[in-house]
Amino acid sequence: MKAKGKMTVKKEKPSGTAGAFSDTYFVIMAGGRGERFWPLSTDLVPKPFVSLTGKKTLIEMTVDRAKRIVPIGRIFVVLGREHLPAAKKCLPELPLKNFIIEPVGRDTAPCIGLAATMIHLRDPGAVMVVLPSDHFVPDGKRFAGLVRQAVKAARGGEHLVTIGIPPQRPETGYGYIKTGNKALSLSGGDCYKVRRFVEKPDLAKARHYVKEGSYYWNAGIFVWQTRVFLEGLRSHMPRLYEGLEELRGALLRGEGRKADAIFAGFEKVSIDYGLMEKAKNVLMMPAGFRWDDVGTWTSLSRVLDTDDAGNVLRGRTVALDADNCVIISDSVPVAALGVSGLIIVASKDGILVCDASKAQEVRQIAKIINKKS
Amino acid sequence: MKAKGKMTVKKEKPSGTAGAFSDTYFVIMAGGRGERFWPLSTDLVPKPFVSLTGKKTLIEMTVDRAKRIVPIGRIFVVLGREHLPAAKKCLPELPLKNFIIEPVGRDTAPCIGLAATMIHLRDPGAVMVVLPSDHFVPDGKRFAGLVRQAVKAARGGEHLVTIGIPPQRPETGYGYIKTGNKALSLSGGDCYKVRRFVEKPDLAKARHYVKEGSYYWNAGIFVWQTRVFLEGLRSHMPRLYEGLEELRGALLRGEGRKADAIFAGFEKVSIDYGLMEKAKNVLMMPAGFRWDDVGTWTSLSRVLDTDDAGNVLRGRTVALDADNCVIISDSVPVAALGVSGLIIVASKDGILVCDASKAQEVRQIAKIINKKS
Repeated sequence: MKAKGKMTVKKEKPSGTAGAFSDTYFVIMAGGRGERFWPLSTDLVPKPFVSLTGKKTLIEMTVDRAKRIVPIGRIFVVLGREHLPAAKKCLPELPLKNFIIEPVGRDTAPCIGLAATMIHLRDPGAVMVVLPSDHFVPDGKRFAGLVRQAVKAARGGEHLVTIGIPPQRPETGYGYIKTGNKALSLSGGDCYKVRRFVEKPDLAKARHYVKEGSYYWNAGIFVWQTRVFLEGLRSHMPRLYEGLEELRGALLRGEGRKADAIFAGFEKVSIDYGLMEKAKNVLMMPAGFRWDDVGTWTSLSRVLDTDDAGNVLRGRTVALDADNCVIISDSVPVAALGVSGLIIVASKDGILVCDASKAQEVRQIAKIINKKS
Repeated sequence: MKAKGKMTVKKEKPSGTAGAFSDTYFVIMAGGRGERFWPLSTDLVPKPFVSLTGKKTLIEMTVDRAKRIVPIGRIFVVLGREHLPAAKKCLPELPLKNFIIEPVGRDTAPCIGLAATMIHLRDPGAVMVVLPSDHFVPDGKRFAGLVRQAVKAARGGEHLVTIGIPPQRPETGYGYIKTGNKALSLSGGDCYKVRRFVEKPDLAKARHYVKEGSYYWNAGIFVWQTRVFLEGLRSHMPRLYEGLEELRGALLRGEGRKADAIFAGFEKVSIDYGLMEKAKNVLMMPAGFRWDDVGTWTSLSRVLDTDDAGNVLRGRTVALDADNCVIISDSVPVAALGVSGLIIVASKDGILVCDASKAQEVRQIAKIINKKS
């Protein structure tokens, strides 16, 4: 599924073993909507494509991290067609054929399945690294170090490897990974057996998980051989597996329209629910790097510098007698006077003024505004 | 002082007594800066020229009220040259010669003195009604009714007449007028002797004034014969009087530049301090009309409709779980979520987010922003 219309694929020579990571491919998932970061992100320019944390967009920074391990030609971005203009603008150096267009959104299992199928066609010995496009990982070097170890672990040809984040607070918005005994000891980090994937907990459970020590945040970072992954689908998601086999055939015959139709017929299922929670061969490596999913406006206070009063200020802003605010302008000057704990964001599309405690509800606002305009 | 450059004047035939108010002239004072209503008002487009309360600007509504009594040709607007473009835009029907340009701001005594001198030259029997340009008086009919009575009182040729506002709250931001006995009883309202003009009180005094019953707010509305007013200046502000005499000579000789220089030499003095507090021949009529000086953003909650949660909403706005806010957009959509008691104003010049209790300090913000840009 290249950017130019119908799904097609060209079989390439397997990369073989030239170079330490010549078998490695990155798949960066850039689905999703723009609602939580309205008015900076919008339906057409969702979170990965917006400069939230600095000059670069989150997806640019994600590609930069991948480039520490592989050349740009082995980095793929999966996204909806409507986001292609924004993505091309952020990633001018990414070859057009490396944008994998989902004809429709079908959650992560079909999305990763599609990418795995395409990469497996190109290189049956491929190791695939799946990354979300919109997370904040400032230390690219440490990140790359750990991913290299994960690739090595995946090369064993037995395991689905995931990278878990040591929980920093009792977060109820994430899934958790409960680990068991150490399975492998690598030079750059240990691999633990995964006992189970845990869905978003309530606060009491989340508190327990943080204290207990064997729970990690599930950050959606996966490393595996495409072969091992596809076998996992065959065992646990047989209908998706068969559909992908059919889709593979269509791609090989150059039947892009048919491939699109097959994909559109897939059930919406997340990879966590469909595969990871069921598979027995999952290993987890604890992330030794700083990570933040930058999930809402308030998270910017965690990842960006603040002034003495705890304000995050970006763009043309004036804060007078204001504290613990996130104030961002991509537009005209914003002045905050005598306010506390507010999110104030101005763009050419709109202006948000929101109590920090309500940052999760910004989606609603975006929906109302989109309906009105 | 016509709009076109230097001060000049053309002597006109006195209006005589044709028509009930053919001796009456309105002088609308439109000095002042735009800081308290940033970002809607600016240095170049101050408060009178901004649509704060509805579709019309405050100065348009002021002229509309005056037109209930006199034709447009007898309505004058005194303003600084920098505000002429904004004023002409608001008042396209006002003859250009009816804009009286202050060469420099010298507070209200020289300003009213200048207008009185020019009107007196044109019509020595003139009654002059002085109005601020930026107050909110929704009931034009009642306003006009009372002003007509005030003009009749002023025609007696003895008194400086002012209209006082029955105090609605213990306001510390206004001057007060302490009244004495009834002096005149007119069909449309009584005239009281003025005991004294009181400067802005502290809260305890303001509370006392409200309860006491004989105190009124000084709203800067004055009605008098130009002759009586100029005699008042001769007694209490002799230097200004002499300067105005000199200025009158310059105007008669067509020496606009000289007239400007004389005006620039005047001391900055308010009419309250310079004349009203000293004169013994002041009468006051209580206003029977609704009045608000729309002094800060918070005052809009008093003069505009609010929703069930007490929000004033104007322009493209969305308020979700928000109460007691003033939310105005002349620009992109503004969304307020989970906030209370805020002033949120967006224009093409900037965005203000301010706790209602700090509305008085918006000036500071405007100064900082103006310095930065």
